[in-house]
Amino acid sequence: MNGNDRTPQIEFWFDFASTYSYLSAMRIETQAANRGVRVQWRPFLLGPVFAAQGWNTSPFNIYPAKGAYMWRDMARLCARYHLPLTKPDPFPQHSLLAARVALAIPDDRQLPGFCKAVFAAEFAEGLDISDVQVLQTCLCAAGAPPDLLETAQTPGIKSALRAQVEEAMQRGIFGAPSFVLGDELYWGDDRLDDALDRLA
Amino acid sequence: MNGNDRTPQIEFWFDFASTYSYLSAMRIETQAANRGVRVQWRPFLLGPVFAAQGWNTSPFNIYPAKGAYMWRDMARLCARYHLPLTKPDPFPQHSLLAARVALAIPDDRQLPGFCKAVFAAEFAEGLDISDVQVLQTCLCAAGAPPDLLETAQTPGIKSALRAQVEEAMQRGIFGAPSFVLGDELYWGDDRLDDALDRLA
Repeated sequence: MNGNDRTPQIEFWFDFASTYSYLSAMRIETQAANRGVRVQWRPFLLGPVFAAQGWNTSPFNIYPAKGAYMWRDMARLCARYHLPLTKPDPFPQHSLLAARVALAIPDDRQLPGFCKAVFAAEFAEGLDISDVQVLQTCLCAAGAPPDLLETAQTPGIKSALRAQVEEAMQRGIFGAPSFVLGDELYWGDDRLDDALDRLA
Repeated sequence: MNGNDRTPQIEFWFDFASTYSYLSAMRIETQAANRGVRVQWRPFLLGPVFAAQGWNTSPFNIYPAKGAYMWRDMARLCARYHLPLTKPDPFPQHSLLAARVALAIPDDRQLPGFCKAVFAAEFAEGLDISDVQVLQTCLCAAGAPPDLLETAQTPGIKSALRAQVEEAMQRGIFGAPSFVLGDELYWGDDRLDDALDRLA
C-alpha cells in the first residue's frame, strides 16, 4: 500500500467457500471502479472463525431452515445479478488450498482474475476447488504461473494465511464477505454498496 | 382475510425484542402503501426458535463479534432512516407479554399502532417492554382498550401465541423480521423492499 496514494481503498475479506462472497467477488470491481475506489482482495478462512464459535461446519448446514433459506435467497440474487448458480457438492467446499494459492500470487493485477475464476469454477460450474487441476486452470485464466501451486504449500504461505485469519478475527470479522474501511466494518454482500458509498 | 379481496398482502413476522424488526416495523407501512400492498402483522417469539437451535439467548449475545457489529450496523441504518436508537437494558427484552397483548387486539386497525408504540418505547426510549404500565401506554397510543392486558393472559391468547410460533417454525422462519408471500420467504429488514417489489 502506497502511503502517497490518495485513492480510497476498500478491503474485501472473503472465503472461497462462501456463497455470498461469490456475489461480491463478481460485483465488486465494477461497483468500486464506478466510484473510483481500489479493492484490496483479502482471502481468509471462515473455518477457524466458525470453530471459535463452536461450529464444525457452515451454519447453513448446522441450521437447516437457515440453509434452505440461503439457497433460495442466493437463487433470487443470482437471477438479479445475472450470475449462474450451481450448488457445490460437498458444501461448503474445502477452500484452504485456493486461499493459499491466492496468497502466493505476487502480482496484485492477477489476484482478482484468479479469485473470480475460482468462484466461477465452484458456483457456476460446480467444480471441486480443492482439486489441483481446477486451481491450475484458474491460475492460467488469470495469467499467473502454474508453479504457484507449489509455492502455495510452502511454510511462508501457510503462515501468511494463518496470520490473515488471525488478523480477521482481531478486527472483529465474523463472517464473509466483509468489507473494511479503516475501523469501519460492513458484513455481507448486502452491504457492498453502502461500504463503497461511504468511501466515495 | 377476505377471499374476494385482490389487494396483494405481505405477512410481516416479527419479535418485539428484535432490533432489525424495529426498523421494519417503522418502515413497512409507508413502503407497502406506496406499492398498494396490505400488511398482515404477525408477532411471534424468537425464543423457542432459538431454543430449537440450541441457543438460550440472542445470537448477538452468544457471539460477541456478531453482536458488536449488529449495534454498529443498527446505528448506521437508524441514521439513514432517521430513527432514534437506544440499546435496551437488558438486551434482548422479554417480549412475551407484548406479543400476547398484540394477539389480544381484536381490531386490525389498532394493531400497527400498538406494535410501533412498543418498538418506539423499547428502541427509542429504552423502556422495559415487559412492564405492564409501558404496555398500557402503548395500547392507549393505539386507541385500544387497556383491559386487553388482562385478555392477554387468558388461556386462549396464550395458546394462540404458541400456535403462531409453531406456524412460524413450520413455515421455515428462523429469524426476524421475516416477510412471507405464500411460500416465498424473505429474511431481514434488508429484504423488505425486495419482498414488496415481488408483490407489486
